[in-house]
Amino acid sequence: MPLGEFDVIARYFSRSSPRSDVLLGVGDDAALLTPPPGQALVAATDTLVEGRHFLPGTPANAIGHQALAVNLSDLAAMGAEPAWALLALSMPRSDERWLADFADGLYALAERHGVALVGGDTVSGPLVVTIEVLGFVPPAAALLRSGARAGDLIVVSGGLGVAAAGLEELQSGRAAFESKDARVRRFLRAEPRLALGRALRGFATAAMDVSDGLLGDLGKLARSSGVGACIDLERLPVASELAAYPLAEQERLVLHGGDDYELLFTLPADHFGHIAHFSEAGGCSLQCIGSMVPGAGVECRRDGARVNVAGKGYDHFAC
Amino acid sequence: MPLGEFDVIARYFSRSSPRSDVLLGVGDDAALLTPPPGQALVAATDTLVEGRHFLPGTPANAIGHQALAVNLSDLAAMGAEPAWALLALSMPRSDERWLADFADGLYALAERHGVALVGGDTVSGPLVVTIEVLGFVPPAAALLRSGARAGDLIVVSGGLGVAAAGLEELQSGRAAFESKDARVRRFLRAEPRLALGRALRGFATAAMDVSDGLLGDLGKLARSSGVGACIDLERLPVASELAAYPLAEQERLVLHGGDDYELLFTLPADHFGHIAHFSEAGGCSLQCIGSMVPGAGVECRRDGARVNVAGKGYDHFAC
Repeated sequence: MPLGEFDVIARYFSRSSPRSDVLLGVGDDAALLTPPPGQALVAATDTLVEGRHFLPGTPANAIGHQALAVNLSDLAAMGAEPAWALLALSMPRSDERWLADFADGLYALAERHGVALVGGDTVSGPLVVTIEVLGFVPPAAALLRSGARAGDLIVVSGGLGVAAAGLEELQSGRAAFESKDARVRRFLRAEPRLALGRALRGFATAAMDVSDGLLGDLGKLARSSGVGACIDLERLPVASELAAYPLAEQERLVLHGGDDYELLFTLPADHFGHIAHFSEAGGCSLQCIGSMVPGAGVECRRDGARVNVAGKGYDHFAC
Repeated sequence: MPLGEFDVIARYFSRSSPRSDVLLGVGDDAALLTPPPGQALVAATDTLVEGRHFLPGTPANAIGHQALAVNLSDLAAMGAEPAWALLALSMPRSDERWLADFADGLYALAERHGVALVGGDTVSGPLVVTIEVLGFVPPAAALLRSGARAGDLIVVSGGLGVAAAGLEELQSGRAAFESKDARVRRFLRAEPRLALGRALRGFATAAMDVSDGLLGDLGKLARSSGVGACIDLERLPVASELAAYPLAEQERLVLHGGDDYELLFTLPADHFGHIAHFSEAGGCSLQCIGSMVPGAGVECRRDGARVNVAGKGYDHFAC
């Protein structure tokens, strides 16, 4: 006999919280929380739809991870420290094995970052997972998209294009969900750059996470800041996992691939040394790919000469 | 040409906020908010799925209203004052007319209660609307489900069963969405009892909103509080809109119908006078239907004799 709605919540989504700032968690009409004084509350929500954000047949554990990871990535991009999450889960059936796997994926990531699941809603319907995360940041230290200035360096964390390559391997059938392939693993289990986001407080002038493709996302950052951007294609952070790909493929994946959830940020050149320490201390690699310039739009250069780059980032209603 | 994802957000979900506690709203990776010192943050989320929570063909304006109303009702049940909302909208197409209507319905209710829409996510997929609301309450004044004690009175606001009757009229084709019928209007546009929730601070020992049916929801409140409940069927708050229904139908609708979003609460008998002032001042009618008792479960009495009542509240995975 399938579990009822309230049994689902009680059995899978009521793990006790290690946070003392949760006065009341799952089980009442709403959660009661204690934000720390003097900090801004940071709130974000992201939705994953089966067939759009994840392929049919994706292991539930990976969906649970990903649904939280994309949200935590938004908080990382603000320089925020995450605290609490709410889950709205629409699913066709209350399949106990699926639910246990999903909850394990979600809680494993939550526990790594000290996040408490404090509420939610479980309904029957198509498989759609929405998470909302809440965190904190000192108001003056928040990283916005709008603070970049002409002359600032443009920096990207980690290597890009890996998750997009993993997605293509899954879509083409060249790899299975259970594959140990690093690209597939990265697509299914991107890790939000929370430590880097906090390290950028006071140094970065603007930041966002790369979720819809580097070129499109950099365009948004430039537009928000009211300046232009100029990047050198030979400095793109091509991940080592793409070493065997042809150069044109590498460039396409790095410029347009989404889902790596790396951070894209700008900072004055004299701050780069501070941030490099984070990288050297084992945080993650950081690659300077160009600089912000007066004007508007994103210009790509190869060997110093301007080039046009085809393709664009992901837009849900553009296809 | 259909609107792109980012145009949808910019055009329909970026109305400026009247709240000075919104440091940064829609348009960045996350919102930045300033909770008032000394208050608990109250967070709830509810999801509406087409075909489950609203019928196919429901006017977008009503969906926008309802998606926010069910969430505000959760805050009302905590005695909280709402402040901010985030919207996660999955929809098949970016239909401009639908979006404009949906946004109008959502913003009209938001503005009535001083709520600012501060963030969200818009994706293509099945029609699923998730809203998350945030508000405040003094920590000691929050209304939980767990505080009822044996001897407390059980009180319900307004009249119950109206929304369920409206839903049945729509499902059977006896009424259309555009009908002026009071039952249909109530189903499409229930008003959250926020003023009542705040008036109950310091008086009610437990509270919740009636969303899945009075009998089932009272059972949850009793279980949370570790006591039993006993109600008198002749005291049920049958709404005047149900006057023409046969008595058995009235009882079924009132006991098991959902979606009225009235408040169900308990309080010591000597507090009832205070709360009655709220009712007399035009807040809404309040009906005492019984009292909490030692033990467990919900007992129904008719003319003082115990009766068994068939049927139960709504459970998403029970069918």
